[in-house]
Amino acid sequence: MTYAATTALKNSSSIIGYKTYLELIPEFLKGKNVVSSSMMKEVERGKKALDMAEDGNTVALVSGGDPGIYAMAGLVFELAQKGGYLCRIEIIPGLAAINSCAARLGAPLMHDFAAISLSDLLTPMEVILRRLEAAASADFVTAIYNPRSKKRTRQIVQTQEIFLKYRNPETVVGIVTNATRENENIIITSLANMLDEEIGMQSTVIIGNSQTYRWGDIMVTPRGYSDKYSL
Amino acid sequence: MTYAATTALKNSSSIIGYKTYLELIPEFLKGKNVVSSSMMKEVERGKKALDMAEDGNTVALVSGGDPGIYAMAGLVFELAQKGGYLCRIEIIPGLAAINSCAARLGAPLMHDFAAISLSDLLTPMEVILRRLEAAASADFVTAIYNPRSKKRTRQIVQTQEIFLKYRNPETVVGIVTNATRENENIIITSLANMLDEEIGMQSTVIIGNSQTYRWGDIMVTPRGYSDKYSL
Repeated sequence: MTYAATTALKNSSSIIGYKTYLELIPEFLKGKNVVSSSMMKEVERGKKALDMAEDGNTVALVSGGDPGIYAMAGLVFELAQKGGYLCRIEIIPGLAAINSCAARLGAPLMHDFAAISLSDLLTPMEVILRRLEAAASADFVTAIYNPRSKKRTRQIVQTQEIFLKYRNPETVVGIVTNATRENENIIITSLANMLDEEIGMQSTVIIGNSQTYRWGDIMVTPRGYSDKYSL
Repeated sequence: MTYAATTALKNSSSIIGYKTYLELIPEFLKGKNVVSSSMMKEVERGKKALDMAEDGNTVALVSGGDPGIYAMAGLVFELAQKGGYLCRIEIIPGLAAINSCAARLGAPLMHDFAAISLSDLLTPMEVILRRLEAAASADFVTAIYNPRSKKRTRQIVQTQEIFLKYRNPETVVGIVTNATRENENIIITSLANMLDEEIGMQSTVIIGNSQTYRWGDIMVTPRGYSDKYSL
C-alpha cells in the first residue's frame, strides 16, 4: 500500500468496498461508516459511493490492485457522468497485478508488454483472440489477466495455442497466484507446460518474449544492455 | 511510495541511485552510506550495488517508478548472473508511469493495453515499429514510454502515422509530463493533434482505444459495463 492510499482512508468518513478487500484492512475501518458488498456488484457499489459523496461525505471506494488498471476507476467516471453527479473524484493509483506479480517473478517486464484479460463477460471473444494474436506475433511480453475461472476454462487453452504459433514451446512463462498474500504461489514453467499448473481466478500469467530466460527461480526479460555494453 | 519501499530504505545501510531520484528522498539518506550517480550509468550503478551487497551490506538500489517495469530490476539480475554474485536480491514494486499517469488522466487503462518504449538505444527500430503496428491494429490502449528526446524526434511522428492507419483522428490521447511532481503537466488531446503538444523525456503518452472518450478533463476507456448493465 502507498502512503497516499492510507492517507485517503484516514481522511474518509465512509469506506466502501468488496468484502474480501475490506477484510485486508481492518485497522482503517474503525470509527468509519463501512459499506461492505459482495463480488460482482460493481455497479451498485460505484453508485453507492457516488451517492454518499454527493451527500457531502468523503468516501473511499476500495479496490484491489490499482483502481486504474482493469478496475473500478472507469466505472465510477461512467456512472458519475451518466448520473449527473458533481462530486470530486480522485483516483489514487496502487500496485496492479502486473507490478506485484512481475516483482515476485524477477524481472519479466523489462521490455514492451501487453496486458490482456481473458474474461469474455464484458468483451467479445473475437476481440480477445485478435489481441492475443497481435501480442503473440509482435513478441510482446504478455500479462494475462483473469486467465481461468471454474466455468471459463477454454480461453487459456486458446491462448497457449495462439502463442505456440509464434513462440518456442520453451518460452518462459510465470504464473503468480494470490501475489503477496499468505497463500501466494509462484511458478515458473514453459509455454508448452503451462497448462499443467494451477491457474485460477486469483492467478496472473506472464508469457515471456523470445528473449526472456530463466535463471534458477527468476524470470528475466533482458532490456538489451548486453548487446551494447559488456556486462 | 509504498510502505514496503520505505521499510527497505530504513533497513538498508547503503543507498545507491541516480542523483535526481535520491534528491527526492533526502529524509531517507541521513546516516546512510549514499552513492549517487549520474544518468546513463546503469551498468556501473548495478555493479556497484551488487559489489556492496556481496561485501555484506544491505543495499537499496533506488529506481524511479517501478523497478520492474522498463527499469533496473532486469539489469541487476543479468549482472548478478554474469558476475556470479550470490547476494540475495529482492524487487520491491512501485508505481510505474502507467499507474501514475493513468490515475492523473482519469481511467484510460480499463481495458487491454500495451506498453511500448520508443527508445531505439537498446532495441532495433524495426521491432518497435512492428509492435506499434500490432498494438494499433488490435485496438489496444497504448502507453508510449520515452516518446521523444532532444535527438530522437522522428519516432513519435511515426507512431502517430501508424495509429492513424487504424484509428479515428479524434481518438483521445493523454499526455502526462512529470507525473505527480511539482511541474506536472496533464494534456488531453486527440490523435490528430497530439504532436502540437509538449512531449519530452519526462512524458508518457497514452493513446486510447476505439471506445475511449473524453469527459471534460477526464479520459475514460469503458470496461463494457454499459453494454451489459443499465448504468
